[in-house]
Amino acid sequence: MAIRLDFLDGDFETRFAAFLTTKREVSEDVNATVRTIIDDVRLRGDAALADYSKRFDGIDFSETAMAVTEAEIDAAIALVEPEVLGALKVAAVRIEAHHRRQLPKDDIYEDAMGVGLGSRWTPIDAVGLYVPGGTASYPSSVLMNALPARVAGVPRIVMVVPAKDGQINPAVLAAARMAGVEEIYRIGGAQAIAALAYGTETIAPVAKIMGPGNAYVAAAKRHVFGTVGIDMIAGPSEVLVIADGSNDPDWIAADLLAQAEHDTGAQSILITNDAGFATAVENAVERQLKTLPRAHTASASWRDFGAVILVPDLEDAVPLANRIAAEHLELALDDADAMIPKIRNAGAIFVGRHTPEVIGDYVGGSNHVLPTARSARFSSGLGVLDYMKRTSILRLGVEQLRTLGPAAIALARSEGLEAHARSVAIRLNLGDEG
Amino acid sequence: MAIRLDFLDGDFETRFAAFLTTKREVSEDVNATVRTIIDDVRLRGDAALADYSKRFDGIDFSETAMAVTEAEIDAAIALVEPEVLGALKVAAVRIEAHHRRQLPKDDIYEDAMGVGLGSRWTPIDAVGLYVPGGTASYPSSVLMNALPARVAGVPRIVMVVPAKDGQINPAVLAAARMAGVEEIYRIGGAQAIAALAYGTETIAPVAKIMGPGNAYVAAAKRHVFGTVGIDMIAGPSEVLVIADGSNDPDWIAADLLAQAEHDTGAQSILITNDAGFATAVENAVERQLKTLPRAHTASASWRDFGAVILVPDLEDAVPLANRIAAEHLELALDDADAMIPKIRNAGAIFVGRHTPEVIGDYVGGSNHVLPTARSARFSSGLGVLDYMKRTSILRLGVEQLRTLGPAAIALARSEGLEAHARSVAIRLNLGDEG
Repeated sequence: MAIRLDFLDGDFETRFAAFLTTKREVSEDVNATVRTIIDDVRLRGDAALADYSKRFDGIDFSETAMAVTEAEIDAAIALVEPEVLGALKVAAVRIEAHHRRQLPKDDIYEDAMGVGLGSRWTPIDAVGLYVPGGTASYPSSVLMNALPARVAGVPRIVMVVPAKDGQINPAVLAAARMAGVEEIYRIGGAQAIAALAYGTETIAPVAKIMGPGNAYVAAAKRHVFGTVGIDMIAGPSEVLVIADGSNDPDWIAADLLAQAEHDTGAQSILITNDAGFATAVENAVERQLKTLPRAHTASASWRDFGAVILVPDLEDAVPLANRIAAEHLELALDDADAMIPKIRNAGAIFVGRHTPEVIGDYVGGSNHVLPTARSARFSSGLGVLDYMKRTSILRLGVEQLRTLGPAAIALARSEGLEAHARSVAIRLNLGDEG
Repeated sequence: MAIRLDFLDGDFETRFAAFLTTKREVSEDVNATVRTIIDDVRLRGDAALADYSKRFDGIDFSETAMAVTEAEIDAAIALVEPEVLGALKVAAVRIEAHHRRQLPKDDIYEDAMGVGLGSRWTPIDAVGLYVPGGTASYPSSVLMNALPARVAGVPRIVMVVPAKDGQINPAVLAAARMAGVEEIYRIGGAQAIAALAYGTETIAPVAKIMGPGNAYVAAAKRHVFGTVGIDMIAGPSEVLVIADGSNDPDWIAADLLAQAEHDTGAQSILITNDAGFATAVENAVERQLKTLPRAHTASASWRDFGAVILVPDLEDAVPLANRIAAEHLELALDDADAMIPKIRNAGAIFVGRHTPEVIGDYVGGSNHVLPTARSARFSSGLGVLDYMKRTSILRLGVEQLRTLGPAAIALARSEGLEAHARSVAIRLNLGDEG
């Protein structure tokens, strides 16, 4: 059973503040192991990849090639149920269409003074996409990570996925094909991150590495950051549902459980102004848990991190939601639209009673890689801009330099940077004294 | 004297590759100290700030308030030379105008299916801006970090700056006033970062921390990352000049030295197709060094990390420039415009013979906080987006849920996430079997 907090209780602020800072992740210290693996891959390249893949994944690269071939992808696709292939296609088309709207426009202009200025966007040359193996090997995540790269125009998208005992989820390969990934290696763990960052004989290095992974993968990404770019390190997922008493308690319970089944560290929160409804949802959660395949995970998450918060008025939910800054926020209200402008901090907002968060996980079109653990206060979900970079362009003629130069010289000298001052002064024949 | 590399030499690729991976920074391991300071500030708040400020900055908060008052800023401004104030104003107006063009537009729309989708941008609630003390206390950096925040609409901008023996550079306070910073504390080091991230009795916490600092500040920023957002950790600055033989060697030498005077770890690189011009620049560097106040720093940087690269044709400079991915790239060429589209990786491009990089440091209007150490391959300079975050919005009615729901259910089940499937199915009266 999740905790209950009541806005009107005297100790609400204390309990809510404590709730906000609850840690939901045990961070394993795997840095020493990861560092050894990375150093080894840098030193020995493919040979090190072969050793680690044999040891950790039980795959022998003297028998199976590291690279996945087009024929293997064809064969895998034939194994995927047509219904799932069709659903992946629906998702891919919608994700691509939505992300295409995120493509930035260059802004190249001349100001009133005649100074040329510009912001120019270009795709990153090469990105690596990590896909976990086993049960966390989600084809939907392949689409969510690879399609924005493709929309951005990234010329080289490299996917790595561990092949435990040689196996890769066929739907993952199908999704990769749909998303236009043309270079796939069956490697995983810290060794795969090292290979992407530094390159080996087989794998050319990339400039940025994206995608979720276990503690070793996360530590390896932190470790190679700087040499390459990395995306955010995702924490356990969370949902906040703001719901009035007119909802079907079973619908809302189902949404809370959809989040809870991800991970024992996931978090589901309900804020409502209706105590009776809150109880009905709590009861529905217990009832639905009985027939849920992942009940063990979902009930642990709900018990340890779930919360039901009672507020006297739904307006009181707004400041709480902004402090929680949830990855996913459902507004299951009559006039959900009216609340949207008041919400400042949320990864994604799901509006109305017919927009369960799960639609956003798969087929809504928006990205399901979103900021967790309150980081929506300062960061955004994955998008096309994450696969591009902006270059500033500046162009002065002699006239503009004459106009602006003296101010630059004054500032440089006030900062004690005489060589800065001189690089302007020398072009204006001002000599060393400016 | 900088090294010389010749594209036509047999060992060019080996030497160039080694040059690219040269480390220019000694990274001090200050993590243990930083962790102690952060923990202490979290535990003891203002009292810990007072202790560390007394110890490291020689300032006593029982005599001087931690917060800088409006009257103190007025008094500081009166101390700044009018010429410098005027130059700061020129810079501020231009920086603000350029950054205003970076403001993103919300994109709220309904697709052909009637699904509501949206990308909505909001400013971060509160940001902290670290300003170093001493000689690295640059008013221009205050403008570059604070103005984009103001343009983004960040309601609370907090500046921290260490006051060694009570002193703060008056021009820094003048720049803060111009940039609309209304909350300033005379604290620095890891303790200031901890105060911004976790808050104290006097200082409310922020959501993101920006700005450069020494090894302690950088380590503290890494440490609090996750609790708050941080900007990139800037490395030593660098410039790459691509120049033909028609340039005045003295102008180009001045530009190389402007970069070199920053830091012994700074890097200045010239690529040219004219060996005679290369020698003339090298000679001009040596000549100009003789009268440079910061000659000690500049000559060390030029000696240890400077490079002159000869190419047979200026076209050969392009792939090298893309591999170097310089923070600053000057194109001192007749037809500089023609080269711009070929340059994929650069923080900022300075076009033509009359656009020394220094203009971009101060008064060009673009931001001078740019990606260093080859990170322009995957990241961008500071801009308005760094002070905002994007929230996705998704809205389905019952009709859209009927259309898209089955695909979501199919994908959820294929990923083994039955509770996901049910949260959609229950709304479509499909029951547990979908």
